[in-house]
Amino acid sequence: MTDEKDKTAGVNRRDLLGNSAKLATMAGLMGASGVAGGLVASPASAKTASKLKSEVAPGELDEYYVFFSSGQTGEVRIIGMPSMRELMRIPVFNRCSATGWGLTNESRKILTEGLQPNTKKFLEKRGGVYLNGDLHHPHMSFTNGTYDGRYVFVNDKANSRVARIRCDVMKCDKIVEIPNMLSVHGLRPQKYPRTGYVFANGEDRVPLPNDGTILDDPKQYHGIFTAIDGDTMKIAWQVMVDGNLDNVDADYQGKYAFSTCYNSEGGVTLAEMTAAEQDWIVIFDIARIEDAVKKGDYKLMNGVPVIDGRHGSRYTRYVPVPNSPHGINTAPDGIHVVANGKLSPTVTVFDVRKFPDLFNDKIKPRDTVVAEPELGLGPLHTAFDNRGNAYTTLFIDSQMCKWNIDKAIRKFKGEKVDPIIQKLDVHYQPGHNHTSMGETKEADGKWLLSLNKFSKDRFLNVGPLKPECDQLIDISGDEMKLVHDGPSFAEPHDAMIVHRSKVKPIDIWKRDDPMFEEARKQAAADKVDLENAADVIRDGNKVRVYMTSVAPAFSLTEFTVREGDEVTVYVTNMDDVQDLTHGFTIANHGVAMEVAPQATASVTFTADRPGVYWYYCQWFCHALHMEMKGRMLVEPKRA
Amino acid sequence: MTDEKDKTAGVNRRDLLGNSAKLATMAGLMGASGVAGGLVASPASAKTASKLKSEVAPGELDEYYVFFSSGQTGEVRIIGMPSMRELMRIPVFNRCSATGWGLTNESRKILTEGLQPNTKKFLEKRGGVYLNGDLHHPHMSFTNGTYDGRYVFVNDKANSRVARIRCDVMKCDKIVEIPNMLSVHGLRPQKYPRTGYVFANGEDRVPLPNDGTILDDPKQYHGIFTAIDGDTMKIAWQVMVDGNLDNVDADYQGKYAFSTCYNSEGGVTLAEMTAAEQDWIVIFDIARIEDAVKKGDYKLMNGVPVIDGRHGSRYTRYVPVPNSPHGINTAPDGIHVVANGKLSPTVTVFDVRKFPDLFNDKIKPRDTVVAEPELGLGPLHTAFDNRGNAYTTLFIDSQMCKWNIDKAIRKFKGEKVDPIIQKLDVHYQPGHNHTSMGETKEADGKWLLSLNKFSKDRFLNVGPLKPECDQLIDISGDEMKLVHDGPSFAEPHDAMIVHRSKVKPIDIWKRDDPMFEEARKQAAADKVDLENAADVIRDGNKVRVYMTSVAPAFSLTEFTVREGDEVTVYVTNMDDVQDLTHGFTIANHGVAMEVAPQATASVTFTADRPGVYWYYCQWFCHALHMEMKGRMLVEPKRA
Repeated sequence: MTDEKDKTAGVNRRDLLGNSAKLATMAGLMGASGVAGGLVASPASAKTASKLKSEVAPGELDEYYVFFSSGQTGEVRIIGMPSMRELMRIPVFNRCSATGWGLTNESRKILTEGLQPNTKKFLEKRGGVYLNGDLHHPHMSFTNGTYDGRYVFVNDKANSRVARIRCDVMKCDKIVEIPNMLSVHGLRPQKYPRTGYVFANGEDRVPLPNDGTILDDPKQYHGIFTAIDGDTMKIAWQVMVDGNLDNVDADYQGKYAFSTCYNSEGGVTLAEMTAAEQDWIVIFDIARIEDAVKKGDYKLMNGVPVIDGRHGSRYTRYVPVPNSPHGINTAPDGIHVVANGKLSPTVTVFDVRKFPDLFNDKIKPRDTVVAEPELGLGPLHTAFDNRGNAYTTLFIDSQMCKWNIDKAIRKFKGEKVDPIIQKLDVHYQPGHNHTSMGETKEADGKWLLSLNKFSKDRFLNVGPLKPECDQLIDISGDEMKLVHDGPSFAEPHDAMIVHRSKVKPIDIWKRDDPMFEEARKQAAADKVDLENAADVIRDGNKVRVYMTSVAPAFSLTEFTVREGDEVTVYVTNMDDVQDLTHGFTIANHGVAMEVAPQATASVTFTADRPGVYWYYCQWFCHALHMEMKGRMLVEPKRA
Repeated sequence: MTDEKDKTAGVNRRDLLGNSAKLATMAGLMGASGVAGGLVASPASAKTASKLKSEVAPGELDEYYVFFSSGQTGEVRIIGMPSMRELMRIPVFNRCSATGWGLTNESRKILTEGLQPNTKKFLEKRGGVYLNGDLHHPHMSFTNGTYDGRYVFVNDKANSRVARIRCDVMKCDKIVEIPNMLSVHGLRPQKYPRTGYVFANGEDRVPLPNDGTILDDPKQYHGIFTAIDGDTMKIAWQVMVDGNLDNVDADYQGKYAFSTCYNSEGGVTLAEMTAAEQDWIVIFDIARIEDAVKKGDYKLMNGVPVIDGRHGSRYTRYVPVPNSPHGINTAPDGIHVVANGKLSPTVTVFDVRKFPDLFNDKIKPRDTVVAEPELGLGPLHTAFDNRGNAYTTLFIDSQMCKWNIDKAIRKFKGEKVDPIIQKLDVHYQPGHNHTSMGETKEADGKWLLSLNKFSKDRFLNVGPLKPECDQLIDISGDEMKLVHDGPSFAEPHDAMIVHRSKVKPIDIWKRDDPMFEEARKQAAADKVDLENAADVIRDGNKVRVYMTSVAPAFSLTEFTVREGDEVTVYVTNMDDVQDLTHGFTIANHGVAMEVAPQATASVTFTADRPGVYWYYCQWFCHALHMEMKGRMLVEPKRA
């Protein structure tokens, strides 16, 4: 295989290098910052010492926001880098006791409105909302190849959903369940001209429709690739493919998305899934697919146009790579894409400039490969600096491998050069990694995070369940230098490092925010002024209680309902001071929620416990916080 | 008032100092490390520079476990100190997406078995378990005045519960709802001879019984103090008191517990609750109360002996202190107890050696007071070093005040001496504080944590909801020195700093652990060997699926059930390698759980979605982790 590979790659590499017009176009598209880096190796003769510090002194600010996935926990964490302190948790697929996520009417609307009808039905008996999710891949929206600070998109493999977080308020505002597939795994946004599409891989192959008519017949199972409209969070289109889709990335030109696939065998057991020597990546031609949607070359399934992109389709191309590739990462040079071998010690480097010829059948699939260096055991993901270097996690070797893209290309062409620059031990079994701004054309080559799946004895023993381990590595010099170990609770799955200049959150909610639009509507219908409310509206056995909070008091010190009433409490926080969040808890009712400055939050419950139940502010707000309370008097049913 | 106070205190201070026999007894009881500190001021002439570092280099271990409350989040966090890294989250009152806490049969048993019958009924329509709680005060079990590494006890104000965490596995194993009261606030364990009792304050006064027969009649509301048996987690007894109970502590002699009370007025609004110039602390005589239980001097309410400890009772004493005292803290000298003024700028220092005389009516309540220094605005909590100094949080001033107990006593006796040593700005509005081992007779005077309720602009902006702020202060020298700012998610309510030598968790579950006793019983009844299971047992429309996990495979690669079956899946993790945790998730079923090495976990759900649903390991375990999966085939109902 190696001979054949080298030969085809060599031919096409030369073809390409002769094509100066094409290169010039590419450079124009990319802008100045994105192009040069990838092709220039750092000079080995002039060593630069790494010197960055992890410590951030009291009162000083971090330089980067890290949007940290949390894995099984189902939340997004905002971490300050380089201190690696957790600045905020954003509940998304989990149930949050503190904020009331999953309980408030505002969050339940977000958690339910994007579900498929049969899922809504399934959840009727289960409290109406999913309470779990394994949040994997946080990625920010792009404009012109770099982060634009609008949204962060995340996926839930467990219950097949994609969610969006608003970066002005750092709250989730949309969740959509992806139909026609199971288990959203890889997720990445379109980089150019903007997001645009959010691409999501359906990992596990299932029957279509998956309603029990087809069961133990794996030949009738399919994999599905999905494009979501990032502005509306509606499914734009889907593509049926061969194999299990793993990770995905997009180019810097806005033309292609590409996914790694494992289980090209179509197996259902471990042995079947790993039998073949090769799997593939699948490349999606966005313009051709959009054209197919326009022309109607699809099948409508659960309201979504599903295009047939299996082998032979004009919408996709399958490029063979060694067994079970996992991560796929586009370099900031805008040219190179790295697929990581997992069960092969290699990574495969593609040149996106060759993809048009591939789709036009001018070259063969493997002609798009320009390098395939052998790095070590278990390559899973690759990150990049701004000096043409790549950093690949080696899961089995527990190492980070720094290598040079240009040298790898030269070696692939036959030159006797070693692309590997350094290997650094990490602790232990790294999965994803990420460099500062390294997912954008503004990669700055300062920091690298290694997200490790095991910590073993790296921290104080906390029992049989150990934390995982995220490690911060200074890559500003010629050598990688480990500067900080961070224990992570279940788990440091993936992360995205965004310079603080890109993110501009607000401090105080705007009173016309869409988050509490339903509350405004209901208050208007009840002729209640939310900002001056101290009202109890009875509507049959429904009672709506409106109050404001101004530290240290609620506008209502008591309200009375009858046993069996369906009660909705609306609290509007009229404090407009930064950080003056209030809470609202009712004792022994499972009711607690956050109400940040100038926000309205609401909760609905049935008052079926007669008696006196105190409600109180649980978010410490004032010297008289303990006294910020009132009584819900629940009158018993008359016998 | 000041003249009267100084006079009575002076007399009794002298009385006491003449009583050398009593002092000697106390010294014997306390052991060498606990006694001397409190009475000796640090010499101002020989300044010691603080020099401790917060940084812990990669691969190095922290020196202390901090059990961190998490406030509204409902979990316990284990933090490594001095690095202040989060080492583990222990779900308790929250719903945890990662571990399946609140979902697994093992956790649901713990979450429900200690509930009151009417609460079980209340939760029937709500999924069976509470999903929230505001976990406030983590405290470890004691033996002979210091931490013994057995348990951590915590309280939930929101739903009136107390929970216990096993420190061998760092999991919650018992939760009990406290009847006859609402809102468990202050919680502390008995320090001597061992825990023994866990004391818990019912903060909000309610009718007894609270069933709707009494509603808007606050004169008929009562406060309740509770003692829980820490070994069985059953309620031992309760005491009815006047006023709202706030915080609680116990002595080092095993004789008394004492609580701060606010709202001695018995009011129900802010103005009513803060009207009086004075409130009180209430002291509980444990031996007398135990005697009352033996003799039957109680009313049995919801199965609990309730003793009348209101004014005039022989079981309690009420000592007037300035308006609305909040925290109450026993010094490691075993002698002094500090009640913190909140709405008064003072703290009140009691001498526990005077309590016997008070209960025997030989002295008046205020005669137990030996100092009452004015420290600043909003004193909330006090912590101690091993050199006779105290550290009090000033909420309104946003400061930590270091003062000397002996000097405060001398000033109270009339000497012209300033007990205040230093005030340090903290950021902002501190509540609880804690010193390393400072809650025990082994206080070591190295570290102080200030747990602040606001962070404002102290960290990168993360939107309207800000983190709170925990700050680490080096107190090893003569001056407090701030070394680390930590952002905390909702919230750093309280913390306990335990030297790592006190805690010995295990790495691998023991197969006979009580946590999965029900699973062992059911497997035995089904004649299934959990450790070698690959079985599907049908029992009417109930199906029990038993499998093992050994990386990278489950012992069952598929199982078939029928639409509508109630399915219980038992997974036993047969890997016995440290940190080799597996997970079990079923796609689109809201099902996910943790299975640590050698543990068994189970989950029950109804299979009412016909079709093919993949289950998979979500806890990264192996290079072939992605392939560790199987299929649940759900046959549709026959029409």
